[in-house]
Amino acid sequence: MEALKNYTVRQLEELLRELMEEYRGYQARGLALDMSRGKPNTDQLDLCQGMLDTVSSSLGAVSGSGVDCRNYGLLEGLPEVRRLLADMLNVREDEIIVGGNSSLNMMYDCMSRALLYGVYGSDKPWCKEPEIKFLCPVPGYDRHFAITQHFGIKMINIDMTPEGPDMDQVEKYVADPSVKGIWCVPKYSNPTGVTYSNRVVRRFAKLRPAAQDFRIFWDNAYTIHDLYEEGDTLLDLFALLKDEDKEDMVFIFGSTSKISFAGAGLAAVAASTNNIRFMMRQMAIQTISYDKISQLMHVRFFGDYSGIKAHMKKHAAILRPKFELVEDILAEELSGLEVARWTKPRGGYFISFETMPGCAKRTVSLCKEAGVVLTAAGAAFPYGIDPKNSNIRIAPSYPTLGELETAARLFCLAVKIASVENLLIRSV
Amino acid sequence: MEALKNYTVRQLEELLRELMEEYRGYQARGLALDMSRGKPNTDQLDLCQGMLDTVSSSLGAVSGSGVDCRNYGLLEGLPEVRRLLADMLNVREDEIIVGGNSSLNMMYDCMSRALLYGVYGSDKPWCKEPEIKFLCPVPGYDRHFAITQHFGIKMINIDMTPEGPDMDQVEKYVADPSVKGIWCVPKYSNPTGVTYSNRVVRRFAKLRPAAQDFRIFWDNAYTIHDLYEEGDTLLDLFALLKDEDKEDMVFIFGSTSKISFAGAGLAAVAASTNNIRFMMRQMAIQTISYDKISQLMHVRFFGDYSGIKAHMKKHAAILRPKFELVEDILAEELSGLEVARWTKPRGGYFISFETMPGCAKRTVSLCKEAGVVLTAAGAAFPYGIDPKNSNIRIAPSYPTLGELETAARLFCLAVKIASVENLLIRSV
Repeated sequence: MEALKNYTVRQLEELLRELMEEYRGYQARGLALDMSRGKPNTDQLDLCQGMLDTVSSSLGAVSGSGVDCRNYGLLEGLPEVRRLLADMLNVREDEIIVGGNSSLNMMYDCMSRALLYGVYGSDKPWCKEPEIKFLCPVPGYDRHFAITQHFGIKMINIDMTPEGPDMDQVEKYVADPSVKGIWCVPKYSNPTGVTYSNRVVRRFAKLRPAAQDFRIFWDNAYTIHDLYEEGDTLLDLFALLKDEDKEDMVFIFGSTSKISFAGAGLAAVAASTNNIRFMMRQMAIQTISYDKISQLMHVRFFGDYSGIKAHMKKHAAILRPKFELVEDILAEELSGLEVARWTKPRGGYFISFETMPGCAKRTVSLCKEAGVVLTAAGAAFPYGIDPKNSNIRIAPSYPTLGELETAARLFCLAVKIASVENLLIRSV
Repeated sequence: MEALKNYTVRQLEELLRELMEEYRGYQARGLALDMSRGKPNTDQLDLCQGMLDTVSSSLGAVSGSGVDCRNYGLLEGLPEVRRLLADMLNVREDEIIVGGNSSLNMMYDCMSRALLYGVYGSDKPWCKEPEIKFLCPVPGYDRHFAITQHFGIKMINIDMTPEGPDMDQVEKYVADPSVKGIWCVPKYSNPTGVTYSNRVVRRFAKLRPAAQDFRIFWDNAYTIHDLYEEGDTLLDLFALLKDEDKEDMVFIFGSTSKISFAGAGLAAVAASTNNIRFMMRQMAIQTISYDKISQLMHVRFFGDYSGIKAHMKKHAAILRPKFELVEDILAEELSGLEVARWTKPRGGYFISFETMPGCAKRTVSLCKEAGVVLTAAGAAFPYGIDPKNSNIRIAPSYPTLGELETAARLFCLAVKIASVENLLIRSV
């Protein structure tokens, strides 16, 4: 296909008429599809259906370690489930706390505690500082930014490169003592799918922030969420930090939300023993213990970490064709037009799509008006502001393949319409 | 028995020798009993064993309302479980949010959000005020006070009377605009067992605090936790507040921790729709949704509120003999000595015991050194300071009847020893 920028105004107008006619055809179909969130499909949830059989009145709810999971106790989690998730996050058992069903909630709690109480090594609660700031690689995870904005923490955009956050920018900003931390999704990053390169991770380990209580919020949400047999490899930041005697600088988060049940998985935070002890003292004020029945169900179903790894191959078998279908349609419909580029992730839950500058909102709006809901344009940026109005996050997991084909074709059509409109406006 | 105060010094010395000999007998038995927390016994947990059969791969995890409980969604809780707990707390379905497994965590979260963000009607976050204070009826629930202390909120003791908090004191203190709230366990209060009288609840409804964003933290933990067929009756504060157009003034908390599984029950917060909407906006930042598999298990097991009420009779049948055994032994061992008084609750989880002034710590310490752990003396007071050093919380639920008999006898012995020692010191 020829690049749209080479079209004459008359050709663009003609093309727009054709595209709009096609678009009205989609509108007439009364679609109702949702590609807005990284939500697993029913097929994926069914992979864990056997977990529902792991507790029963006859099997009981006493763990292998002899804990009655029905009663109070063990704030830090069942020993066997700490081991399971410690293996997944590559930390020691005493470096992990297994919480409720949401790693997002654990991140929120870490931030909330930091504000009201400080972290290990803080002089005072963060909320007592005149202003604090967080570094936000963009595009990034909208819910990270929502937490930060909610608490009135000033967000600073850091550009994402194909190998992770721009570390020159990161190193520059951490010289400011009011910069207290950075959000990272280091593997199959949300939404770009980028896995941080060894060079980037090594520079994180060498960071010397002015704030002594600086924290890297290392949200390893997709640590084993490979789409292909050969997954990306992420250097072990925690190990590198230990070599630097800086292991207190990171909070590592993970969950089984995209392994077992999205709404009823297990979440965990891993950190240095200094951090864990400090957190546990605060968490003992907050609650008595988390739901150990759910913990027991997980450990009975998966057994050990090798069970989780084997299970993830089944997820990949469902997800891979969806990603490939979207990528094929994007290539087929848009290649050569020179109006967009997109990522081809080897894991995780998202494709990150870049329209020509100024076209993202219009594209998302066109899709919505034809019944396909995408993540709001700008959502992957602090304050919802994409400076170039070009980024769109595509989440292919929830629709069926058939729905996805329809949605992806409509999406491409919307991209073309928005692009042509944009070129026409610019030509005026 | 004769009052110890009438004993001569010689008689007291002789008695102490006898008591200490008996005490050494207990020490020799190597006891290891725990009466420190309101922890249900295994028998009580077994009452809900059938709940473990309510989900399975064949029964699935789709709710009656058609919600796939395995996936993300419904932050406010499953509709049917909102109805279930709304009936229990006597509110409307749209006045309740069902959360995770811990009402303590929901209280902590309410406090943390108030500090960092304010409540509905706040001018600013509470943490931005120069100082804030909370009213704490004493003796009260140690974990309420721990949250308050943790956040640096100044606590003001309010005396508990046999019909609830001393409302003269409450009315006096709420005239101070830095007083932002009060902790209440209005039914079968922890630890006194007192249910607030109609007069007290009506005075709560008529409160006109100087702080416009004042909140009553109404922890209705034992709302249907009757030991006897005829339970105490608590006036409906929320309804009274609605009559006064002051319904935003209360947060109501409840849970099934002492109904289903202590460590894997359901917690809820109920409040005015203004409060609920305000909270939901903040909670949507904190998490995606709570564990709906656990919610589904509860609603499938209990059906509706009548199912919960029927179930509570089974708990009463287990707990009532334990309370009565302790009360019988206390009466048998201590009546007439004029060294103690204690409550005879008709529900809840605790007996509140008052030694002579100055004897609580010694009593608890004597028990501990003979292998019976009680809640730390002073725990039921802010900062752990019981001004009279006389209050001890007895939690009879966890031990078996046999263990309880031993523990109660030892406890009475410890009370006698501490009292005699105290009288001897005073006689010097």
